[in-house]
Amino acid sequence: MPLDFVIPPLKATLNAALQAKIDQKTKPLGSLGQLESLALQIGLIQNSLTPKLNQPCILIFAGDHGIVEAGVSAYPQSVTAQMIANFLAGGAAISVFARQHHIDLLIVDAGVNADLNSHPKLIAAKIGKGTRNFLTQAAMTSEECSQALQAGADQVLHQYESGSNCIGFGEMGIGNTSSAALLMHCLLDMPLVQCVGRGTGLNDEQLQNKLTVLQQALTQHKSATEPLDVLATFGGFEIAMMVGAYLKAAERGMLILVDGFIASAALLVAYKLYPHVLDYCVFSHVSSEQGHQALLTQFKAKALLNMELRLGEGSGIALAYPLVQSAVVFLNEMATFAEAGVDR
Amino acid sequence: MPLDFVIPPLKATLNAALQAKIDQKTKPLGSLGQLESLALQIGLIQNSLTPKLNQPCILIFAGDHGIVEAGVSAYPQSVTAQMIANFLAGGAAISVFARQHHIDLLIVDAGVNADLNSHPKLIAAKIGKGTRNFLTQAAMTSEECSQALQAGADQVLHQYESGSNCIGFGEMGIGNTSSAALLMHCLLDMPLVQCVGRGTGLNDEQLQNKLTVLQQALTQHKSATEPLDVLATFGGFEIAMMVGAYLKAAERGMLILVDGFIASAALLVAYKLYPHVLDYCVFSHVSSEQGHQALLTQFKAKALLNMELRLGEGSGIALAYPLVQSAVVFLNEMATFAEAGVDR
Repeated sequence: MPLDFVIPPLKATLNAALQAKIDQKTKPLGSLGQLESLALQIGLIQNSLTPKLNQPCILIFAGDHGIVEAGVSAYPQSVTAQMIANFLAGGAAISVFARQHHIDLLIVDAGVNADLNSHPKLIAAKIGKGTRNFLTQAAMTSEECSQALQAGADQVLHQYESGSNCIGFGEMGIGNTSSAALLMHCLLDMPLVQCVGRGTGLNDEQLQNKLTVLQQALTQHKSATEPLDVLATFGGFEIAMMVGAYLKAAERGMLILVDGFIASAALLVAYKLYPHVLDYCVFSHVSSEQGHQALLTQFKAKALLNMELRLGEGSGIALAYPLVQSAVVFLNEMATFAEAGVDR
Repeated sequence: MPLDFVIPPLKATLNAALQAKIDQKTKPLGSLGQLESLALQIGLIQNSLTPKLNQPCILIFAGDHGIVEAGVSAYPQSVTAQMIANFLAGGAAISVFARQHHIDLLIVDAGVNADLNSHPKLIAAKIGKGTRNFLTQAAMTSEECSQALQAGADQVLHQYESGSNCIGFGEMGIGNTSSAALLMHCLLDMPLVQCVGRGTGLNDEQLQNKLTVLQQALTQHKSATEPLDVLATFGGFEIAMMVGAYLKAAERGMLILVDGFIASAALLVAYKLYPHVLDYCVFSHVSSEQGHQALLTQFKAKALLNMELRLGEGSGIALAYPLVQSAVVFLNEMATFAEAGVDR
């Protein structure tokens, strides 16, 4: 499965000029903390001293998972399709937060196990009606995995060509914390127990079952270590699409907003393929799902929010978005000491 | 100096109904983390299952400090008045963030050492042209302190009567981290060294000088232990006004947004007088100024943001405001499982 993305490191050309611009603003040096490093990063991504956020959008990739047969989730598979209807009707958390901040929200059917009614905000891109159960076989074929990567990339390209330069990816898929935990375990060689969490709210006994099931799955697929093999073996259609989406967004120099655990596990695959994808990423929050902090540590990232969120859907992205705006706003709109006639 | 505020604890009447409303929303139980406890608190403050944020506003109290003669700040006293001009011209950090979020911004001249030009957003309430240097005498008389408390309360009452139910207080005053550190030391009986920080950016030598100066000031005023005595001895006019502002806002059942170190030191005085003022407070951020985390611990508070901000002006309040909105928005606008037809 050949990949032909081109993801260079950020150009550092404007680094000194951006830092000087930040330091001339009427405030003690460094006193806007993390907002200052964020402004610098956005300036570098856009290679501009006056960056702008155009048409911010969130794509929610949705897919079902064969592994839910093994009882790894607190919710039934039917919830994936039901929540898509809820997203589209405007009643989900991500719906209300995206509306609050005027972020365009689109749902991509990557592989939901249901026939979905058409809707202007729903993109039909189904690879299959859910993945296979990876207890017995790979979740998807390598052809399906390629197809999903391409579809994710295509969706981003469409947004880019429509004028967006700031994008985030959410997900919906009952069972997908199991996939994310296995990706993390295989690609970081971390003990499974540190990668597996309670997802939507498993109790102790259910968590133990999830761990046992995933341990068993690993014994079936000992050979998977390459990022795309691991993705095809244990991933989901929505996760594979997110991988392609991250890569295309970075290739096009878009600012990428990263959500929680599953979104970060998908980013891990992208990072293993093209490390500089991280240069384009802003981490919206650290989830209370076990494993997320370790992923952020791997990425050497400090998230903007730490509010014990564990909802997915891109909800952390929407909540953190005003802070991203604030970084741009202070860089563009604050007066300098000279302009304001303030003594240094 | 008799105080006649009436600040009861929050009524818990709606506690169970609010929690049930939160739990029926289409999301895993508890998955919105800190946003859920925030929604509950706002519902209790407004005693409503459908709380609303009306006319959010930030008052910046500004005053000068006699102690700056002793070289405790990295900036000259002239900066206080210059920054007020910058606030009013729209070029300061708080100006751009308040504008971003449509928060009304008013500046109160509590005691700036300059004659300020009138402006529609500037409220003239000067108690004096800066406090006295507390190395030799109390910063203000108890009459001045009373007058400042009353003025702060009056400003809040005016906002309340104009229809605001959500208010935050910022400050501007070169030298005021010194006052805040002494209030904290005296009222919490914490070692001075844990209360004194770098303020606007002191180097090691300047920090040591600040510590020596404040230690010396303490030896001059051994008797101050009562909250209002401590406030008059070491406070500032802007800090005393903030104390009155917090108390009036809580009395009127307004949602109070708390900024950083100095704002929290003022709240500490209010809390020592009327402990239930805290019931009405949401903590916007934890500052990187030494001492702020300890104040938050004292208040048993977890701040919304932790971004290494240390700017004051109410900037943390403006940055965190969208999260406060999000708590209200999800409570009012998200669908329930029943409404959305989602399986539990």
